Amino acid sequence: MQREPSSFVSAERLWDRLVHLAQFGARDDGGVDRPALSDVEAQARGQLVAWSRAFGLRPFTDALANLFLRLEGSKPELAPVLIGSHIDSQPTGGKFDGAFGVLAALEAVEAIIASGRQPERSIEVVAWTNEEGSRFAPGMSGSEGFTGAKPLDVLLGVTDASGCSIGEAVSQILARDVDIPQRPLGWIPAAFVEPHIEQGPVLERRGIPIGVVSGIQGTRRYRVRVTGEAAHAGTALRAERRDALMAAVRMIHAIDHAALEPNDVMLTVGLMQIKPNAPSVVPEEAFFSIDLRHTDDGVVDRIDAEIRRIVEAERGTCEVDIRQIAHAPSLTFCREIRSVITDAASALAIPSMDIYSAAGHDARQLHYVCPTGMIFIPCRDGISHNPAEWAEPDHVAAGARALADVAWNLSKRKE
Amino acid sequence: MQREPSSFVSAERLWDRLVHLAQFGARDDGGVDRPALSDVEAQARGQLVAWSRAFGLRPFTDALANLFLRLEGSKPELAPVLIGSHIDSQPTGGKFDGAFGVLAALEAVEAIIASGRQPERSIEVVAWTNEEGSRFAPGMSGSEGFTGAKPLDVLLGVTDASGCSIGEAVSQILARDVDIPQRPLGWIPAAFVEPHIEQGPVLERRGIPIGVVSGIQGTRRYRVRVTGEAAHAGTALRAERRDALMAAVRMIHAIDHAALEPNDVMLTVGLMQIKPNAPSVVPEEAFFSIDLRHTDDGVVDRIDAEIRRIVEAERGTCEVDIRQIAHAPSLTFCREIRSVITDAASALAIPSMDIYSAAGHDARQLHYVCPTGMIFIPCRDGISHNPAEWAEPDHVAAGARALADVAWNLSKRKE
Repeated sequence: MQREPSSFVSAERLWDRLVHLAQFGARDDGGVDRPALSDVEAQARGQLVAWSRAFGLRPFTDALANLFLRLEGSKPELAPVLIGSHIDSQPTGGKFDGAFGVLAALEAVEAIIASGRQPERSIEVVAWTNEEGSRFAPGMSGSEGFTGAKPLDVLLGVTDASGCSIGEAVSQILARDVDIPQRPLGWIPAAFVEPHIEQGPVLERRGIPIGVVSGIQGTRRYRVRVTGEAAHAGTALRAERRDALMAAVRMIHAIDHAALEPNDVMLTVGLMQIKPNAPSVVPEEAFFSIDLRHTDDGVVDRIDAEIRRIVEAERGTCEVDIRQIAHAPSLTFCREIRSVITDAASALAIPSMDIYSAAGHDARQLHYVCPTGMIFIPCRDGISHNPAEWAEPDHVAAGARALADVAWNLSKRKE
Repeated sequence: MQREPSSFVSAERLWDRLVHLAQFGARDDGGVDRPALSDVEAQARGQLVAWSRAFGLRPFTDALANLFLRLEGSKPELAPVLIGSHIDSQPTGGKFDGAFGVLAALEAVEAIIASGRQPERSIEVVAWTNEEGSRFAPGMSGSEGFTGAKPLDVLLGVTDASGCSIGEAVSQILARDVDIPQRPLGWIPAAFVEPHIEQGPVLERRGIPIGVVSGIQGTRRYRVRVTGEAAHAGTALRAERRDALMAAVRMIHAIDHAALEPNDVMLTVGLMQIKPNAPSVVPEEAFFSIDLRHTDDGVVDRIDAEIRRIVEAERGTCEVDIRQIAHAPSLTFCREIRSVITDAASALAIPSMDIYSAAGHDARQLHYVCPTGMIFIPCRDGISHNPAEWAEPDHVAAGARALADVAWNLSKRKE
């Protein structure tokens, strides 16, 4: 009996590459600072191309500098299976967020080649441009442009803090990639599978190495500005004050209560700014964020309505301005891809469980155009976007092994 | 019948001096920035000495550079009556806070001289050092040292942000004042009356030019630090979070309710700082101020106990550290001085009312050693510590007229 591609995965090689890639943008504290389309990201990108060329992949890029590393199938006219993630990081990022997904995909393809079989469909490792959105906000530029979620000219016009646009930064990257052919945006892959660390504590706590991602939580993000009037803390009667902080406190207190049920609603006020922020002055302004997430859009919508009712009800004599700055509905990944992942883990005797993603990923964008799924592996204490980010070598290897068989199985997909 | 000293008050001269003094440390926005013991304050001090010498007053100073401008009485062996305030300002100060009190006192003494009468007791205009406490914190150094509330060496050792001590700054001022005799600290005045703008809206709103200050509200100030744990806004279940901001919101909400009665409790949370203050991170720390004031110490003490109970009751799984950084009991000025002020206003047909001071003043310190009172005049919209600070010329004149007769009457005081 022929051995599955997963048995050709080299845990050591994959780990060595993770350690090596983390040197591009390495921070003194062991973390990674690798902004999208930066010089250090370009160097990391060059390393990926070098590794993949060494075992026979061909690189391609596109108008957003997305990077594709192609293993040619026996039926090259069929749409390829895409696997991968991104290699940009948060400024205080770690070694695994994004990089694990790309390097696990590279390892999976190398294992397929090592197994001596050629897939029918081509398989491509992908590194999407600017997933994080920390240099160029918002993120997911590469996958949004690839799938057509946003027009190319809008994406290219986004600028960083220094005024440099994605368009300018992409041009610089492409100028270095003269030997990498450009392909058009907008083609439809046969499937997309993104491996990623969980960025939450569930898998680690339950001791399960593989998460079959059911979908991505629905998200709404708001900014609330409460405007009152500054007054002297010792003389202004409270009944006559327009105290912006007290109004904000009433709002947050009520919103917290409104979101107690169900108990897996994610509601966070992470940012709060007071003006003038002096102990003896009644605040004239309070500004705060609300981050709301849940897997059920009905729950998100109900709490959204509550939030809007509460800020009006609790504003007192202050004025309030609430802006929803992001709204992404919840989504469920397709049954087929989830089954392929579950079956692959099962065949490998690796415990797996279904899990929702709380964070957004490029897989959200691909989900709208092709069968899409995600494989999670545990990360220590659920910590990510942090130099302390850590995944166990065994879990990294388990993720790559499952992916190798998943990619192989999907490459046989008919339609 | 001999005319009272008040009838010799020159509203124009007083106003001109207010405008002139505001040039020392003038801000572009019309406000005043005159730090205690600074070069601009020394210049303003020199101007006061020059004005007062021109009509026969003699200057004295002491080890804290308090400035006294003395009109010699017919019985110079008796303790003098002190009237005045301070000439240092907040960095974003106005033309009236402090300066009005000193210049109204100067005008009152000049009017007494102009009336052709010599008082039995000497009358001295005083400008206390570092009332504001914005360069050297805390304030009231001059009056605290004069009355012995704090030891001289402790006061002289207080440093500003650059590391300069009050002792060094005082030495520089006294070196410029070689022709001004130094007197010891610690003598007991016959009385002290401090004129000041109200720094609140009450007099203006009621259209009453003279406030007879009943006393000073009791004050407690706190800093509360709530410590939780940072977590991912999308993955950390709320039941498992240690959300410092939500704990702080529960505390402030409950403290606000606990202080609703009586309706003249002054309770302010003016400062709040969140860490890391990022929209997608559960806050690990919330730091906030509480400013509590009321005329009845029993009320302040009751709410103090409530605050301490609430921060423990509402902290959840967070830790809380509450520090009381200031505690000044309420005080009531002596009946005699209040009567003298009320009678003087009444004789002048100037409407007056009793009013509590919400802010602290040098009169708090003097109250502990001699009969003390304060005269308030209205200020526009209750605004002070602000370049927009404003008092109407008519009210400025009314305050000086009342003070002239008050000082004259107190100079006849027997004991």
